[in-house]
Amino acid sequence: MITSTSNQHIKAIRKLSQKKYRRESGLFYVEGLRPITSAMNHKAVIEQLVFCEELLESEIGRDLLHRTQSQAISILEVNRDVFENISLKDGPQGLCAVVRQNNEDLLLNTALNGLWVALEGVQDPGNLGSILRTLDAVGGSGMLLIGEGTDAYHPTSVRASMGAIFTLNIMQTNLEDFSRWQQKHQRALVGAVCADVADYRSYNYAEDMVLFMGSEQKGLSEQATHLCTNTITIPMVGSVDSLNLANATSILRYEIFNQHHPVKTNDCIN
Amino acid sequence: MITSTSNQHIKAIRKLSQKKYRRESGLFYVEGLRPITSAMNHKAVIEQLVFCEELLESEIGRDLLHRTQSQAISILEVNRDVFENISLKDGPQGLCAVVRQNNEDLLLNTALNGLWVALEGVQDPGNLGSILRTLDAVGGSGMLLIGEGTDAYHPTSVRASMGAIFTLNIMQTNLEDFSRWQQKHQRALVGAVCADVADYRSYNYAEDMVLFMGSEQKGLSEQATHLCTNTITIPMVGSVDSLNLANATSILRYEIFNQHHPVKTNDCIN
Repeated sequence: MITSTSNQHIKAIRKLSQKKYRRESGLFYVEGLRPITSAMNHKAVIEQLVFCEELLESEIGRDLLHRTQSQAISILEVNRDVFENISLKDGPQGLCAVVRQNNEDLLLNTALNGLWVALEGVQDPGNLGSILRTLDAVGGSGMLLIGEGTDAYHPTSVRASMGAIFTLNIMQTNLEDFSRWQQKHQRALVGAVCADVADYRSYNYAEDMVLFMGSEQKGLSEQATHLCTNTITIPMVGSVDSLNLANATSILRYEIFNQHHPVKTNDCIN
Repeated sequence: MITSTSNQHIKAIRKLSQKKYRRESGLFYVEGLRPITSAMNHKAVIEQLVFCEELLESEIGRDLLHRTQSQAISILEVNRDVFENISLKDGPQGLCAVVRQNNEDLLLNTALNGLWVALEGVQDPGNLGSILRTLDAVGGSGMLLIGEGTDAYHPTSVRASMGAIFTLNIMQTNLEDFSRWQQKHQRALVGAVCADVADYRSYNYAEDMVLFMGSEQKGLSEQATHLCTNTITIPMVGSVDSLNLANATSILRYEIFNQHHPVKTNDCIN
């Protein structure tokens, strides 16, 4: 049992809160029973599991630990002090993991079928994570992260994704490579902008498409907008001049989902 | 000019990051040029304006300060150290304010016309603020905060609302008083739940209605659900079992908005 917070394994885990170390190691930190269950169910590569007997109270947590013991996963037992030192939660459940990132680079030949969301320079990891969560809910395929910004493996993004980080494809690229990809594939690339363009409800969304969203502060860059096959906007009638990025993305994805999944008539009520 | 972070005015401002002091004083903290502009435009009661000459670089900031100087607002000049001490931003713009809260209690005779959102026990101030922002965008009337939870005047909520905190009515109540109000007014009270109930698109929303959302962790309580005139759900086809609260609320409010604001036919594209 590890009882020191300066143990090298513990130090390495703490470092995963920094983007630099996540990038260098290709690993990320996952905490809590539900996300770890999701990781296992979706065959994520768990490099290390850390548990604290004293905090691991629930049946689900003990079952989960038992499941990993039958696999070739390195398991560390730590005391309460050490667990609370690495934990990012107020009421830690006694189980966390170091998991291998599943992101890929966008290559010219990569096929992006189904619904993809591309984010240009997203800043807020909470937004990123909840965008993953809604993307999973509508049966989307994956997310393209374009240019500099937060990464999907930031602890806040991982937590906000509620397990969706393990179910979706996540790709990192830059605008130049994405532009080359788009020139070759000529995909329906629909950019959301705050401008006098088509109402988002008036557009017929293709099954295979990329929804392109800009950053929280700046929206889509001119270059990015130029790449789009169409631009759409969400009407607003109040005094604010834009919506939160994750909220706007959710509204748009449900319109896309709804066009392909009409309400069953026996559901209708008045 | 105040140069000490232990000045009594500065201490009082810092305390506004705590709910207890916001409740006792009826005041809240607002930072940044855009939110303060919104406060002035919507005639919020600004009790105190704090500025730092060195940080106040923009024309808009100087104009704003000039506008307040012609009104009966107490103005404090502070040095950079003091401003950075109270600021909650990474790149402070040199202007912040103490503003009077505009929330009211829900009385039996209170009229709630138009679209209201009621939140039961909301926990995350970022969610709360972005719900205010979208509510303003769809021309909603206001928000009811029911039971214990975060308050709308938490600095994170204020920032996330992007000024909507000044445009909307905000009321605090508890489930018992809301239940009495509802018994009297018989308002269309539509609760969002994760259950096998009507698809949210199949319901015809009234112009005067309350959309009722539960907390992030627990959803609507049994008691709250029991009050609803109807319950609706958002279909999901992936592996996550719920959506982020603010995202779900945005999707629902745009369905309500859309039913009352059809797309103009000349907008249609294919």
